[in-house]
Amino acid sequence: MRKLYAIGIGAGDPEHLTVQAIDRLNRVDVFFVLDKGSEKADLVRLRQEILDRYVTREYRVVLASDPPRDRTPADYRAAVADWHAARAEVYESLIRSSLGPSESGAFLVWGDPSLYDSTIALIEAVLARGNVAFEYEVVPGISSISALVARHRTTMNQIGRAVQLTTGRRLASGWPDGVDDVFVLLDAHTTFDRYVDEGLHIFWGAYVGTPHEILRSGPLTSDLAEEIRQVRAEARQRHGWIMDTCLLRRPAP
Amino acid sequence: MRKLYAIGIGAGDPEHLTVQAIDRLNRVDVFFVLDKGSEKADLVRLRQEILDRYVTREYRVVLASDPPRDRTPADYRAAVADWHAARAEVYESLIRSSLGPSESGAFLVWGDPSLYDSTIALIEAVLARGNVAFEYEVVPGISSISALVARHRTTMNQIGRAVQLTTGRRLASGWPDGVDDVFVLLDAHTTFDRYVDEGLHIFWGAYVGTPHEILRSGPLTSDLAEEIRQVRAEARQRHGWIMDTCLLRRPAP
Repeated sequence: MRKLYAIGIGAGDPEHLTVQAIDRLNRVDVFFVLDKGSEKADLVRLRQEILDRYVTREYRVVLASDPPRDRTPADYRAAVADWHAARAEVYESLIRSSLGPSESGAFLVWGDPSLYDSTIALIEAVLARGNVAFEYEVVPGISSISALVARHRTTMNQIGRAVQLTTGRRLASGWPDGVDDVFVLLDAHTTFDRYVDEGLHIFWGAYVGTPHEILRSGPLTSDLAEEIRQVRAEARQRHGWIMDTCLLRRPAP
Repeated sequence: MRKLYAIGIGAGDPEHLTVQAIDRLNRVDVFFVLDKGSEKADLVRLRQEILDRYVTREYRVVLASDPPRDRTPADYRAAVADWHAARAEVYESLIRSSLGPSESGAFLVWGDPSLYDSTIALIEAVLARGNVAFEYEVVPGISSISALVARHRTTMNQIGRAVQLTTGRRLASGWPDGVDDVFVLLDAHTTFDRYVDEGLHIFWGAYVGTPHEILRSGPLTSDLAEEIRQVRAEARQRHGWIMDTCLLRRPAP
C-alpha cells in the first residue's frame, strides 16, 4: 500500500531535524513540494540542504502548483475551506500519478505539522474523497514557538498559568481573556503595536534558527515596538521574505 | 567559562532527539540528574538509553536530591517559589562542586524545556544569586503536546482559531473563554470528567512515544471518559507511574 508522511523539519535550523524525521526521510521515494508562488529561494535552498545532508537514498521531487487563494475573502473560513478542497483535488491526482502502488511519499513541513499548517487537513481531505488509498504518519517537529522561546531562553508559561496560541487577526480584536502569555502566529501586521505601554514584555524573533536570525525582547514600549517594526521591514526588504513570531507576556499577578 | 545546557530530549521516544540535542549531549562533561524521589525506574532507564545510544564521549552523572516540596500549600505560587529558591541553592553548590571551571554540564528535560518545566527558571535563579558564573543554552525538544497530536494525526488548532495550554487545576475552574482547543497538562485528576456530554472531542494519550503508549480519542461522552479513567488507573498501577496529556476540542462554529 502507498504510504504518506507529513514530516516536521523544524523552524529553520537543519539541526532541528529529529532522529525520527531523518529515519522517515530515508524511507521516501517522492517528496511533494508545494510551489506556493510566494516561497522564496532561501527556503527552497534550505529544504534542499536538509535533503542533501540527511537523505542517503535515491529520491524524486515532484513540484505541485497550489491553486490560487482568495486573500481578501468576505468569509475567511469558507475561503480557506474552498481552497483546501481545490488543493485536495490537485494532491489526489499528484499522488495517483506520481506514486507507485507500494511507494512512499512525503510532505516536508516547516516547524511542526500540527501548528497552523494545512498539510494534515489536506491529507485527510484526499482520503475522504475516497479515490486513492494510503496509510499515513505524522512526524512531529520543533515548532516556531519552541524555537523562539529556546533562543530567548524563556518559558512558554509562567508558573501554573495558561498560554494562548493565536493569530494576528484574532489578537487585533482584543487581548484574550484569562491568559498571561500569548504567542502570535501568522501575523503580517505587527499586531503587538496595539499593546504598547500596557506593561507587557515582548519576545520577538525572525528567521529563528537560520543565519538571518534576529531577536528582540524587552518591555513592550512604543520605542521597542518601533524598533522591531523597522528591523522587520528592513530585513523583509533585504531578504525578500520574512518569517517571524512573538510571545507577548503580561507578568502574572 | 563554565557552560550549562538545558536539553529537551522529547516526550519519551528516543527518536525524538534532534541533531542539535545530540550535538550538545556530546559536548557535556557532567549530566545533572534530579532525583525527585518520585521518578520511576522506567524513566531512569529511558534516559540512560538515550545517553548510551547517542553519547560517544566520556561523561559523569551527578545525582541531586530535590529539596522537599509542599504538595498541599495554601498559596500555590508562593510554595513553588520557595521550592525553586531551595533548589537554586542545591544546584548552585552542585555546579560549584561538580563542574570544573571550563567544563560543561547539562540538564536533560523530558519534552521541551519551555513547557511547564522549571529548569530554565532554576538556572536563572542560580545566575541571579551571583555566586557562580556560567553561560547557558536552551535546546528545544519535541513537546508532549506535539507528540500527542502527531500520534492522533490531528492539529493543535482549527483553521484560524486559538489554542490554549493550561493545567488541570485551572481547567477545573471552568472552560477558558474564547478558545476551542485546550491542552490539559499537569493533570492528575482527569479534569476532562467535568466536560462530558457537552459536544467536545477528546484526544488523550499516556506514555506517548514509548512502548507503553495508550491512545484514546472520540466524542467526549461519559462512556469514553469512564473508559479513559479505567485504562489510566490500570496502567498507572501496572507501571507504577503515568505521564498523560489530552487535547479537548470544541468544534469551531
